[in-house]
Amino acid sequence: MKKELPLKPIKHAKIIAGMSVDELIHELDSCAFGAGKLACAARIYENMVNSDSLKFFGLSGAMVPAGMRQIISDMIRDGYIDVLVTTGANLVHDLIESLGGNHYKGTEDIGSAFLKKHRLNRIFDVFLPEEYFETLEQHLLGVYAKMDKGLNIREFIYEIGKSVDDHNSILKSAVDCNVPVFCPAVQDSMIGLHAWLYKQTKPLKVDVFDDMREFMDICYSAKKTGAIMIGGGVPKNFILQSMLLSSKGGFDYFIQITTDRPEPGGLSGATFEEAKSWDKVKESAKAVTVYSDATIALPLIIASLRERLKG
Amino acid sequence: MKKELPLKPIKHAKIIAGMSVDELIHELDSCAFGAGKLACAARIYENMVNSDSLKFFGLSGAMVPAGMRQIISDMIRDGYIDVLVTTGANLVHDLIESLGGNHYKGTEDIGSAFLKKHRLNRIFDVFLPEEYFETLEQHLLGVYAKMDKGLNIREFIYEIGKSVDDHNSILKSAVDCNVPVFCPAVQDSMIGLHAWLYKQTKPLKVDVFDDMREFMDICYSAKKTGAIMIGGGVPKNFILQSMLLSSKGGFDYFIQITTDRPEPGGLSGATFEEAKSWDKVKESAKAVTVYSDATIALPLIIASLRERLKG
Amino acid sequence: MKKELPLKPIKHAKIIAGMSVDELIHELDSCAFGAGKLACAARIYENMVNSDSLKFFGLSGAMVPAGMRQIISDMIRDGYIDVLVTTGANLVHDLIESLGGNHYKGTEDIGSAFLKKHRLNRIFDVFLPEEYFETLEQHLLGVYAKMDKGLNIREFIYEIGKSVDDHNSILKSAVDCNVPVFCPAVQDSMIGLHAWLYKQTKPLKVDVFDDMREFMDICYSAKKTGAIMIGGGVPKNFILQSMLLSSKGGFDYFIQITTDRPEPGGLSGATFEEAKSWDKVKESAKAVTVYSDATIALPLIIASLRERLKG
Amino acid sequence: MKKELPLKPIKHAKIIAGMSVDELIHELDSCAFGAGKLACAARIYENMVNSDSLKFFGLSGAMVPAGMRQIISDMIRDGYIDVLVTTGANLVHDLIESLGGNHYKGTEDIGSAFLKKHRLNRIFDVFLPEEYFETLEQHLLGVYAKMDKGLNIREFIYEIGKSVDDHNSILKSAVDCNVPVFCPAVQDSMIGLHAWLYKQTKPLKVDVFDDMREFMDICYSAKKTGAIMIGGGVPKNFILQSMLLSSKGGFDYFIQITTDRPEPGGLSGATFEEAKSWDKVKESAKAVTVYSDATIALPLIIASLRERLKG
Repeated sequence: MKKELPLKPIKHAKIIAGMSVDELIHELDSCAFGAGKLACAARIYENMVNSDSLKFFGLSGAMVPAGMRQIISDMIRDGYIDVLVTTGANLVHDLIESLGGNHYKGTEDIGSAFLKKHRLNRIFDVFLPEEYFETLEQHLLGVYAKMDKGLNIREFIYEIGKSVDDHNSILKSAVDCNVPVFCPAVQDSMIGLHAWLYKQTKPLKVDVFDDMREFMDICYSAKKTGAIMIGGGVPKNFILQSMLLSSKGGFDYFIQITTDRPEPGGLSGATFEEAKSWDKVKESAKAVTVYSDATIALPLIIASLRERLKG
Repeated sequence: MKKELPLKPIKHAKIIAGMSVDELIHELDSCAFGAGKLACAARIYENMVNSDSLKFFGLSGAMVPAGMRQIISDMIRDGYIDVLVTTGANLVHDLIESLGGNHYKGTEDIGSAFLKKHRLNRIFDVFLPEEYFETLEQHLLGVYAKMDKGLNIREFIYEIGKSVDDHNSILKSAVDCNVPVFCPAVQDSMIGLHAWLYKQTKPLKVDVFDDMREFMDICYSAKKTGAIMIGGGVPKNFILQSMLLSSKGGFDYFIQITTDRPEPGGLSGATFEEAKSWDKVKESAKAVTVYSDATIALPLIIASLRERLKG
Repeated sequence: MKKELPLKPIKHAKIIAGMSVDELIHELDSCAFGAGKLACAARIYENMVNSDSLKFFGLSGAMVPAGMRQIISDMIRDGYIDVLVTTGANLVHDLIESLGGNHYKGTEDIGSAFLKKHRLNRIFDVFLPEEYFETLEQHLLGVYAKMDKGLNIREFIYEIGKSVDDHNSILKSAVDCNVPVFCPAVQDSMIGLHAWLYKQTKPLKVDVFDDMREFMDICYSAKKTGAIMIGGGVPKNFILQSMLLSSKGGFDYFIQITTDRPEPGGLSGATFEEAKSWDKVKESAKAVTVYSDATIALPLIIASLRERLKG
Repeated sequence: MKKELPLKPIKHAKIIAGMSVDELIHELDSCAFGAGKLACAARIYENMVNSDSLKFFGLSGAMVPAGMRQIISDMIRDGYIDVLVTTGANLVHDLIESLGGNHYKGTEDIGSAFLKKHRLNRIFDVFLPEEYFETLEQHLLGVYAKMDKGLNIREFIYEIGKSVDDHNSILKSAVDCNVPVFCPAVQDSMIGLHAWLYKQTKPLKVDVFDDMREFMDICYSAKKTGAIMIGGGVPKNFILQSMLLSSKGGFDYFIQITTDRPEPGGLSGATFEEAKSWDKVKESAKAVTVYSDATIALPLIIASLRERLKG
């Protein structure tokens, strides 16, 4: 093999008892397929932090029910996330835990008769008692009652975040660390349903476009930018589209962890190569897509990253 | 095989030159795996129409760029869709065609140098000239200038729809047929980006929660309800969550066409069995998930449905 | 859009009640994503037939249990398949039907207690009574007893095929039409298990490499060659590897229908671009991958093909 | 939540700099979705070893090219694999490295002109110089020339294994540790192609069914049995079918790592629940399916396992 070719020999990974996650990720860095992509994602995240890039974190999927809440709130507290864009559902499930609830793990084949009897709602192999939603309702109606009547969505989420007294909460960590939380489809969640209930008798005004200016300003003021996408959906597109009307030419760093694929054409599965054609990601960006369940890939990447950055 | 078992013999499909799509779908109805699910979806859609159910259509993915625009606008005009919930992107691409633009088909491996040179944006194997976005901008800024300043999202979309003069448009068909169009994450699209631009100098107020009441009222007033989901995302959840605070017990009919899978836990890939545990879909509902690229499955189902209903 | 670019406008598909499958496929031919790939596959198959190419058909997956048996046996009888490479399982399920058995369709959530009670084996939503395997055993042991003792695998399969008296059988159709059937992992099936039982008391010699010469000779003697792959597995690789030591430069036509993806690196999900780097598929080949459940895509392609070729 | 329910609270994973892989896997053990399944797989593998079960390892996919060769050969040497069933391709790529070749890592978008120019074959993002196949041919023809003329496939593979002088080789490790290697579709590989070449001038007889007796005897003599499946394909089915004609009732332990899904009905994506209906896996078995790229999941599980077992 000639030296000038853009190819490196595969070095077969060696596993040793007691090795650290970062040692394992380093072993995988000279492997291919998913293993190589995963190791590449850890390197890119490290670059992102070390280059003082502004780090946008797009969070979709049911990561909080799955047990990823602490990882994300710690990432906020430790400066690995500068701007969070997420779904209403992740915030709802974060709130439920802050209000004393738990998510429960079972198996995905538990039958519907059992679930109806015990009033359990299912998210694959996670189960949630229906009663929690009553506690949530009381809490949210109380928060709404104290709100200013004309807010944008980011401010609306911030007010909810301030109501939380729980160090491990994603919302509370964001409040504490001045990490803005954007949630474009906030009405598409229990937060939205309770806003609808509340508005049947009382005023509540939240503008749909008003926080875009903040979002754009944050994005444009940054010297270097990076995006980490957990799944696709609205968070992915909302982060990427910020580049469309700018002259920045796209994100400098891009990591996507997804189980979607590009062939059916939806944005959730779109490659970073597509994003480059739209100037959402720079032609020269360091970019990687890890095709993996994010509950596997994210903890690995973060464990590796923490070890790299502690030195 | 005893007669009382809930099993029917597989009848092997027979293909004949010139057979109609509906004849083919009937052949597949006694087949299994994806073929059987597809035929089941056609039957459920037929049931939905014949039982006078209110039909909610959740549209995500890039169906307009792929060439599915006419199918959907015809579905609206012919009464197969009563309520549309979709993404900003599908509306933007619908508008682009109404304003004289085309989407172009190529191959997914066209290189970035070529795309940059010809200023083309890529969506898998679809290509879109960047210049169209300038036409879109002019159009939208004009529409925004004439709008009332306090609208909900459905009204906001309706105003955009009224500006369209194109019988084949999804937006125009919805206006003509009084089919309400909901778009919970409207800011997550070019429609949103241009609203942000517009608001830098002029007022525009669109409330994020205000159209939920209409949506809920439509849903609760219906005797029977059906949901057809193209992909997942916000449209799927927004339709399903309407049942969460009601006593209806869920949708009576449910069809989902998706390439997502349930194991990573996200709502887009969640099964209807999960939806039943939340009372989003009735325990007794006729429900099916077709794991397929929707650009393949939707035309087939609709061709079969049209033939069934014309008699 | 300049005319010289390799791009064509998307023409949105129009669905009409009573349209034929081929009319639908023609509508999809100017659409993108899966719809466009599917229509492309129909065109390539038509080219393959019209150019008198030798057509290799790689059949994996559980296509016979799903109800695709008649389609495949008709394809053999009508000259759409010249060489069949398949798995032992598809042949076993073909035999079971020829011996009077049925596959049964139910739902994938039927519980294990029910299945054990009724002695049913499950293949997703297909169910097979265990008792059929006793009939199969009797039949196969009888066939083995009459066999020559030194055969290659193709001859061994042919002998089994000759024992079948069923016009709709894949095996019988292949015997009748002189279509050779290769089954490289024949021992990986009930055919193999019963061979093992038989050999505990009686001699049976089948050589693993002996039919490769026939396979290679067929392949090399053809002027033009085409490959149609249903799924991946051994059939896909066995067909493709025939080009590795030849100077033909690969197949002229290549159609793959699969639900696998390329990123995990396995051959089943490998793209035709990869195959080109190995000279398994010609650089200039007409080639397409349709990402779809084959029980949906195959009937569509064949219905379209039959209409195109009947004229 | 009542204590008697089969549910446990989700404990959110905590990531600490420098944590070992096993510590991470323990954190994931109280998480859900893929993370929980992965941790469950590590536990089941630990149980398998500690219960002195006979461990069958089904290896498909392109694990050697990806950099997983050392992991697998070390697993053989350390007693984590008792019987190996694999594809010809994995053995070929193992041989290539033993003969001095390397696999090279690049990116999946390297163009075909470059590959043709440098005579490189591609496996997703792995590249292999064509010239290695000439070295392989010389080696194999030499091995075939010294072989006994009437072998079964396991013996045939063993003879090839004996020709290897490389401690890191899978084949050599299996020879050294008396781990039998079965390869049902051996002709579907370069090993097979060179056997075909060889047989054009010289005799070589390898029987397709002869090693099934050994395989069955090993399986039936074991007190407890476990199966670890990397991907699906022939190795998965060949291992599972060993239970079909036995009275053992199936494997006691079952781990599958796959990217396939059950809905298209193929065996590669079939769940262990399906396998239970066939008595291939015991009703009471400890069983798990991890939906993941195996190059990610396998190193994690093995790193965790090694730490658990070293104590």
